[in-house]
Amino acid sequence: MSQELPEGRAPVAWIAGVGASAGLGAALARRFASGGYSVAMTGRTAQQLQAVAAEIESAGGRAHAFAGDVASEAEIHGIAQRVKALGALSIAVFNAASAVRAPTLELTVEQFTQAWRTSTLGGFIFGREALQLLLANDQDARAPGGRGSLLFTGATAALRGKPPFAAFAAAKAGLRSLSQSLAREFGPQGIHVAHVVIDGGIDGERLRSNAPQRVAQAGEDGLLNLDAIAESYWQLHLQHRSAWTQEIDLRPFKEAF
Amino acid sequence: MSQELPEGRAPVAWIAGVGASAGLGAALARRFASGGYSVAMTGRTAQQLQAVAAEIESAGGRAHAFAGDVASEAEIHGIAQRVKALGALSIAVFNAASAVRAPTLELTVEQFTQAWRTSTLGGFIFGREALQLLLANDQDARAPGGRGSLLFTGATAALRGKPPFAAFAAAKAGLRSLSQSLAREFGPQGIHVAHVVIDGGIDGERLRSNAPQRVAQAGEDGLLNLDAIAESYWQLHLQHRSAWTQEIDLRPFKEAF
Amino acid sequence: MSQELPEGRAPVAWIAGVGASAGLGAALARRFASGGYSVAMTGRTAQQLQAVAAEIESAGGRAHAFAGDVASEAEIHGIAQRVKALGALSIAVFNAASAVRAPTLELTVEQFTQAWRTSTLGGFIFGREALQLLLANDQDARAPGGRGSLLFTGATAALRGKPPFAAFAAAKAGLRSLSQSLAREFGPQGIHVAHVVIDGGIDGERLRSNAPQRVAQAGEDGLLNLDAIAESYWQLHLQHRSAWTQEIDLRPFKEAF
Amino acid sequence: MSQELPEGRAPVAWIAGVGASAGLGAALARRFASGGYSVAMTGRTAQQLQAVAAEIESAGGRAHAFAGDVASEAEIHGIAQRVKALGALSIAVFNAASAVRAPTLELTVEQFTQAWRTSTLGGFIFGREALQLLLANDQDARAPGGRGSLLFTGATAALRGKPPFAAFAAAKAGLRSLSQSLAREFGPQGIHVAHVVIDGGIDGERLRSNAPQRVAQAGEDGLLNLDAIAESYWQLHLQHRSAWTQEIDLRPFKEAF
Repeated sequence: MSQELPEGRAPVAWIAGVGASAGLGAALARRFASGGYSVAMTGRTAQQLQAVAAEIESAGGRAHAFAGDVASEAEIHGIAQRVKALGALSIAVFNAASAVRAPTLELTVEQFTQAWRTSTLGGFIFGREALQLLLANDQDARAPGGRGSLLFTGATAALRGKPPFAAFAAAKAGLRSLSQSLAREFGPQGIHVAHVVIDGGIDGERLRSNAPQRVAQAGEDGLLNLDAIAESYWQLHLQHRSAWTQEIDLRPFKEAF
Repeated sequence: MSQELPEGRAPVAWIAGVGASAGLGAALARRFASGGYSVAMTGRTAQQLQAVAAEIESAGGRAHAFAGDVASEAEIHGIAQRVKALGALSIAVFNAASAVRAPTLELTVEQFTQAWRTSTLGGFIFGREALQLLLANDQDARAPGGRGSLLFTGATAALRGKPPFAAFAAAKAGLRSLSQSLAREFGPQGIHVAHVVIDGGIDGERLRSNAPQRVAQAGEDGLLNLDAIAESYWQLHLQHRSAWTQEIDLRPFKEAF
Repeated sequence: MSQELPEGRAPVAWIAGVGASAGLGAALARRFASGGYSVAMTGRTAQQLQAVAAEIESAGGRAHAFAGDVASEAEIHGIAQRVKALGALSIAVFNAASAVRAPTLELTVEQFTQAWRTSTLGGFIFGREALQLLLANDQDARAPGGRGSLLFTGATAALRGKPPFAAFAAAKAGLRSLSQSLAREFGPQGIHVAHVVIDGGIDGERLRSNAPQRVAQAGEDGLLNLDAIAESYWQLHLQHRSAWTQEIDLRPFKEAF
Repeated sequence: MSQELPEGRAPVAWIAGVGASAGLGAALARRFASGGYSVAMTGRTAQQLQAVAAEIESAGGRAHAFAGDVASEAEIHGIAQRVKALGALSIAVFNAASAVRAPTLELTVEQFTQAWRTSTLGGFIFGREALQLLLANDQDARAPGGRGSLLFTGATAALRGKPPFAAFAAAKAGLRSLSQSLAREFGPQGIHVAHVVIDGGIDGERLRSNAPQRVAQAGEDGLLNLDAIAESYWQLHLQHRSAWTQEIDLRPFKEAF
């Protein structure tokens, strides 16, 4: 960890959608912290954020817990001001999602709306705040010539709608579309916007709790490893601005697709 | 027009997103009315609906104006009951949309939400009500072996997000995803769900009022003709269930794409 | 059948890839013949072509058998001159294909090449000859404002490569790409170029001979009906030039996709 | 450079489509050489290969020039045996292409065939030989749990056909399809197959010679930097097998898309 830099000097990473320590948001926070970033984390549960922050700090990194709801403009705007105070934002990741699973005729308007609020509206609100901080950024040494990155966690559902995931898929399709609009609008201004399509189960807290038999059946490396996913986000951020990626897919080697 | 059939016997078409007479919703209503359907029309403005209904009736067709907001579950559910009373629903078309155009940093949460409410949430609410009526349908002679069709009007923006249409594109991408989920869920139950990608300007009231110079520059057949579009929806509805289309694109012969 | 028109006046349809009577090529020939077209048919086997021609003529239509290999520039150029002599070409359909199925390491260069010659190179050679005839076309009353259509039969394999169809998929992907290039180049010149993605088994001679158990399992309308497919080609040809489709998918209502 | 390893121990990289020193093939060779790989290079011109090999060796790397035509099964099979003798193949890259540019009606069968031979058939022949060597590979420390990688250089043309690139696009679409088939077939066997979509001009010898004005207009980082592209191939190779990418796009930050 780059403890030699004074706090105010470290570039800042802002990760939204941080939950359990064994989740993708936390893995992303750890990856950017170990890369020398001061990490601001946003998620619904303050306790979870604080646990991840403590973990990062005990490993010598810098982390800040800013609990909030990505679908709340006021909360995210308030958090953005606190992130701004930490230093120059260099990388922002939107990782929030809310899985809904139901046959369409049983899906309520509330569920359909909730899926959209978390995945699509949240992506817009977070993205807009992050873009304003990134646009104020001076050039970041780790991404030569660029002003930093805005990365979105997507899913295969974003590419094709399929029951019983009609609500989740529509919300993720909206997020993917948003990432394309932002890439086309802000790329020329030096901000790298990319969308990561996670295709397969993630080897984390959620599956281990909810679907232990699926974890068992997946076999070695049959689920996406958290650190392996986070490494690809890190590499996206490091890309030279003459050769940026807008979309990347990630799946286990044995996943049928 | 098939006036020889008693009112209660004519199959029913329900078109949501009917506005001006020189608009796609009205053209769809006319096409299905001239094909012998009793047409139920939903749109925001009762006056516009009544004008289109009067037009259809004076041409010997059957039309019913049911004003309402596609994003209101209560209103659409209420209208669905009135549609049901007209006879067996055979074809439902979701044609509502709300174009928003703005650089992303100027886009408000209200605008982003409004685009989604009209295009995506509206598609879900309308689709769910229509599916319930279609599932109750006995086989329709015009679509042998099927229970009828649910068609969605889409746009090129549904396939790729681009500024200054971030909100509109995300909403249309969500709608397209929804159409895929519904096709996969209800196709095997005999309901033909399809998505029509309109790629280009439509030669209708909106463009003529808002962009007369664009209409002038387009030249002969350089904009999509309303009746030509409606004919493709009609043909989708007539497809045999052994060879259904899920997605079709429509664009003027000279459109760059 | 429009027997009232003298031979020289009937618009001409040229279908390549005509084989057994219970195949898609023959169904397309029948559809265009019954629509009043003088139909020129090309396929590898003269005997099969003559049988289909006899069938069409006994039903009152006009048909001409021109045997040849779509991958042979000389043969197709020669046939094009004979087609030209029949009258004004209004619709050309490329329906040839050569399915190859093998694990990649067992696939020979000859097989890989053969798949490409039939599907991709054949599409180019046939398309180029057809385009030259279409460009010479005066406007066809059936496709107002256009010079006619060039349609390509595609497959789901064109959209995604999957074993054991690596050779077939690569060839079909090449053909799909070609259809897009031609649509963009010749659309503005009044020629409607479209690609039809057949997604599912066709209820024809080939499956009935090679996979009778699959036919049995498919159930009613579980395979694509030949006439239903042909009807969609016919409707593509009839589209108004202000609202042309470039790509359409066709699949049985119960097909998983 | 990892000169401490004896020659026979270094993992092997085989790059096909190596030409000028200021080209992508050479940049890939340099990247893998500096990563400690013994690099086998294949291209049409022995002299160019030897120049790049000399360059790599003078920088302390290991490089071998094996001139040959990727579309010749015999030549590539022969070269594969020489590559095998160098050690365990860990990474193979197919980078050959042959750009053809012409209006479709002026395109000859020879040109259409040549584009396919270099891009599609070459990819199949090279891929098949490389796969056989990779399947024989023991696990490579740099790609934990995997048997190595097979990467294909693609282009935006692979995703959509457009004049005047009908031949090139069809060939690249075929190659992209092939990469998908191979990924699905060999991923579960531990081989990482990926396709890189280069979207934009490359800042190399070809553009500098043929289109100096385009180079000038592109501005700083407006063309893809050779080393930046090569770095993304390197990172693809390093991905953990639980989170492999099948397709990645690369474009300059200011490229319109």
